[in-house]
Amino acid sequence: MTITVIGHKAPDTDSTGSPLIWAWFLSEMRNMPAEAKLLGEPNTEAKFVLRRWGVAQPGIIADVGAGDDVVVVDTNNIAELPAHINDANVIEIIDHHLLQGGLKTKGPINITVRPVACTATIMHDLMGDQAAAMPEAIKGLMLSCILSDTLEFRSPTTTVTDRALAMKLADDLGIVIADYAAEMFAAKSDVSAFSDAELLRMDSKEYEVAGHKLRISVLETTAPSVVLDRKASLMESMKTVAAEDGVEQVLLFVVDILNEEATLLVPNDLVRQLAEASFGATVEGDAVVLPGVMSRKKQIIPALKL
Amino acid sequence: MTITVIGHKAPDTDSTGSPLIWAWFLSEMRNMPAEAKLLGEPNTEAKFVLRRWGVAQPGIIADVGAGDDVVVVDTNNIAELPAHINDANVIEIIDHHLLQGGLKTKGPINITVRPVACTATIMHDLMGDQAAAMPEAIKGLMLSCILSDTLEFRSPTTTVTDRALAMKLADDLGIVIADYAAEMFAAKSDVSAFSDAELLRMDSKEYEVAGHKLRISVLETTAPSVVLDRKASLMESMKTVAAEDGVEQVLLFVVDILNEEATLLVPNDLVRQLAEASFGATVEGDAVVLPGVMSRKKQIIPALKL
Repeated sequence: MTITVIGHKAPDTDSTGSPLIWAWFLSEMRNMPAEAKLLGEPNTEAKFVLRRWGVAQPGIIADVGAGDDVVVVDTNNIAELPAHINDANVIEIIDHHLLQGGLKTKGPINITVRPVACTATIMHDLMGDQAAAMPEAIKGLMLSCILSDTLEFRSPTTTVTDRALAMKLADDLGIVIADYAAEMFAAKSDVSAFSDAELLRMDSKEYEVAGHKLRISVLETTAPSVVLDRKASLMESMKTVAAEDGVEQVLLFVVDILNEEATLLVPNDLVRQLAEASFGATVEGDAVVLPGVMSRKKQIIPALKL
Repeated sequence: MTITVIGHKAPDTDSTGSPLIWAWFLSEMRNMPAEAKLLGEPNTEAKFVLRRWGVAQPGIIADVGAGDDVVVVDTNNIAELPAHINDANVIEIIDHHLLQGGLKTKGPINITVRPVACTATIMHDLMGDQAAAMPEAIKGLMLSCILSDTLEFRSPTTTVTDRALAMKLADDLGIVIADYAAEMFAAKSDVSAFSDAELLRMDSKEYEVAGHKLRISVLETTAPSVVLDRKASLMESMKTVAAEDGVEQVLLFVVDILNEEATLLVPNDLVRQLAEASFGATVEGDAVVLPGVMSRKKQIIPALKL
């Protein structure tokens, strides 16, 4: 049976690229036939990366079947996985997020979680000497995953391991990191075609803060004005998205990659109180700039309180 | 702050030895001061192993404090961990059991789960080249953990990695495995001093089977008659232990290490039905022999049904 390798439901570059990397490794190096699948449409940066390295976009699946052999990468959160994940036969997990405590396995399996910026970095470590066998396209995906998740080493999640590996890969591939990252971020910033609701759900995770169920959305961009010019209609759309997704409030952080700051939209009093309690910010009007804030994992989630 | 390294609540050799091994590694090789602690009295085999390698028995703790830095080894099951484990700051997990889905972490941490027989085997792999720096006592603990968890390579949980590592350690230490394992198993079999209730709880894990909460106890011994001669009073004691521990039934499997079989005590109709449905056994009387059954993880838990 072919193994299915999946990331999470909002495929960014790491969650699109790392299933492809691991499916290559299992198939070619471990003699375990494996195929990457996506749980949704990849974002514009991930689509650019696939084109750039000549890799076909993996098929999108709606669910996994009972008894399917599945490798889960870049998440361990059942809310971000197919509805029937606990009926499937999860055979491996590779991730760099906190342990959510919902995923169970039927037997002892390989689980590797490391506090690095990027899933692909962990995969390189797990490959050991066999990493040398990676073809150019797999190296290109790996480099792209690291540059995406670290925002070209700007994010505080970046470790020396992520950076050293990206440098080595770029060197092998003859890639100038600054130029290539700029192309990736331009692709990620090209979001004008998306509806407000699509933007709010593009890179979004649910968390509970002091009993409030929140959808915490982040848009990383080199052109924040493209998003911020639509502020009014985005805030209007938050109500529908929150109702449809069964949460109390959507928070939208627009991360300005180049200026290393985030703008949080402030549609109401709840979000104003959250911004003031969590970031010590003084909110005037319907948005607040949070200098230095770039990482949901390191800077937003741990700070949120009411 | 000193890091606390703990195993599970019923300290056998792996759950006593591997916290000591990892505390050594963190303190001496990573410059992270760490101390092994136990969550209960170690079993007779673990006590023998500590004496044999001249290692002081770690202190026993009743709980962990909020904010304590804790490394959890040889389990990921909150039922087998201190009451306030989710208030502590769990910084690493090293384990070889199925993911139970209860433990959460505050941020992304190092988690390494591998389907090998023994936690100490995973630690050796994580140490990389630094394993060469292990002093004799740490090597001795590591060898003991592997021989204990694999029942001297007889258990079906044994992997080539566990076996090769044990052979190498024995060679380094000048130990004859057959002789040393016999001494360990003799120590483990020396359980005449324990009460019935203590025996039932000595190596015991809670599981739910078809809606029935069960305490599944295993006693590995080279002298099964020492335990089986007490069959009647053990079955009487099961009622009290079940009531005190809030489970419906205690199952006791007496594993005969040398003859590679288990005897399951059958005090009532529920256990008889379980034995017949799970192992295809024909039960006559108050005990049934299950040929080849040695591992709770590989052979008992996956088979149990009603």
